[in-house]
Amino acid sequence: MASGKPPAVLLLRTLDPPFAVALRDRYRVLDFYASDQPVPLPAFLAAAAAVPDPPRAAVVMGGGSVRANATFFDAVPSLRCVVSTAAGVDHIDLAECARRGVVVANSGKVYSTDVADHAVGMLIDVLRRVSAAERFVRRGLWPMQGDYPLGSKLGGKRVGIIGLGNIGSLIAKRLQAFGCIISYNSRRLKDSVPYKYYPDVRALAAESDVLVVACALNKETRRIVTGDVLDALGRDGVLINISRGANVDEPELVRALQEGRIAGAGLDVFEDEPRLPAELLSMDNVVLTPHAAVWTSESRSDLREHTLANLEAFFSGKPLLTPVLP
Amino acid sequence: MASGKPPAVLLLRTLDPPFAVALRDRYRVLDFYASDQPVPLPAFLAAAAAVPDPPRAAVVMGGGSVRANATFFDAVPSLRCVVSTAAGVDHIDLAECARRGVVVANSGKVYSTDVADHAVGMLIDVLRRVSAAERFVRRGLWPMQGDYPLGSKLGGKRVGIIGLGNIGSLIAKRLQAFGCIISYNSRRLKDSVPYKYYPDVRALAAESDVLVVACALNKETRRIVTGDVLDALGRDGVLINISRGANVDEPELVRALQEGRIAGAGLDVFEDEPRLPAELLSMDNVVLTPHAAVWTSESRSDLREHTLANLEAFFSGKPLLTPVLP
Repeated sequence: MASGKPPAVLLLRTLDPPFAVALRDRYRVLDFYASDQPVPLPAFLAAAAAVPDPPRAAVVMGGGSVRANATFFDAVPSLRCVVSTAAGVDHIDLAECARRGVVVANSGKVYSTDVADHAVGMLIDVLRRVSAAERFVRRGLWPMQGDYPLGSKLGGKRVGIIGLGNIGSLIAKRLQAFGCIISYNSRRLKDSVPYKYYPDVRALAAESDVLVVACALNKETRRIVTGDVLDALGRDGVLINISRGANVDEPELVRALQEGRIAGAGLDVFEDEPRLPAELLSMDNVVLTPHAAVWTSESRSDLREHTLANLEAFFSGKPLLTPVLP
Repeated sequence: MASGKPPAVLLLRTLDPPFAVALRDRYRVLDFYASDQPVPLPAFLAAAAAVPDPPRAAVVMGGGSVRANATFFDAVPSLRCVVSTAAGVDHIDLAECARRGVVVANSGKVYSTDVADHAVGMLIDVLRRVSAAERFVRRGLWPMQGDYPLGSKLGGKRVGIIGLGNIGSLIAKRLQAFGCIISYNSRRLKDSVPYKYYPDVRALAAESDVLVVACALNKETRRIVTGDVLDALGRDGVLINISRGANVDEPELVRALQEGRIAGAGLDVFEDEPRLPAELLSMDNVVLTPHAAVWTSESRSDLREHTLANLEAFFSGKPLLTPVLP
């Protein structure tokens, strides 16, 4: 980048100001969200493909807003790199990327500790009824109604974790400090961990007081938590989901909560977020956060550094820091 | 108790049904709360003192509702044992008990893990804005306003604990699993712990991002957290109190929160509970729970067993399980 104009980068998400400034310092940024009067995505991509020296890299967010698939790459055929600001890459068609020789990076471990902390916080909240007790106090009910209904102790709880990757492992480590007993389900047994392995999610749920969903979303895990799994978890069971909404059969979850087939839930993610099932909003035994598990001021700053480092690696012909593909 | 009628016990708190049944199975219970039309305490005590074979033991709750002081023991001079269902004994005049040869037991470690869990839950809640984000979601604001303001990461936070007893130590152990750096203040340095010791609370606050109040309430600790200590904690600092409301200068705390002199607070206890300062109820950076840190169904069951065992020890002339005095 010492001579000539900087390379173009296709930007398909909003950035906080320090991130936007840092990116513009280094690249010609083609920003889908720059205009107050946004153009349709196909028109924006066609215009981006037509600029001199068109973008070879794209920065995309997680979730469903822009899908990096065949249509997307047909529209901007110059692309050879996709950097996702999410850990999950369910919005990126990896087979299509492989076919076209497009490399893919994700956010690596940038969010892992914050997501694990949030999962533990939501579990304490559900078991000890913190948010519900908060509403009770703020509505002025304490002096009138006295003692708040009892919560349930964390220590001794059998916690089953679906997906023992970075995040799942950090959740396990934290919950061990509270005296919880950890088991897990994943594609295969991990020799390096002391926790009991269940190849079957339903069997894991049946032996757990708490089920934590911490796996990636893909074809194998979509709706991995079925109504049947919730029934195996049982009337005193608690579900925590900090992964992707679609890993849980959400209508079944709502029904299980309504019918008391499980005891409660802590949910940071939803199938059709930011919309969520209206039935949840009036339940006192659920804790609902707005896909906030990943976000702290520290993780946002880490994400900026991490994303810029992945782009710099790509443009200097070096290996990506956190390659998903190849 | 094999022959004759069982001993009398003065009961000065409400009990859950299993506890009440278990107590009545073993003792003649003189229950202040038994009548729907309660008599004034002095009249009740006078009547209790006048029964044949009057009570030698009393079961009292924590907090200020009944104070076991000279007036109390003058009213029922047969008392030789007070069993408190609280860990704190600030409601019991220990000097007066010592003078009269009254032995005193508290709840020991029955609540310690639950209080520690609740403290950690409140800290995650304040730093990650869980309850506030919950309100945001339940009010339907997520689809309209998008991303919720960033929280702050737990890892790396310097946590200063005032009072490193059972509860403080369990909080420290838990927060270490999150990557927090622990320091503490107590009456004296503890050789057995690896944490940095500060003999002065203000100095501890100045070197901490989070201050956790986990000490007993007594003459030395009353309002140990002054406005000055809060200023030392500073604009980004968070206060957690799971001990007694009077350990904090509450009007100063409210002012410090209003003026942004500290960043937030998690409060389970208040000076005049169940009443609390109305200003707190509208703040989004505080988490307020109704003195619920001690209570789970498990701790309540443990308390029943523990209290009965202390009474049995007293009536069999054995040492109390958890003596506070002698």
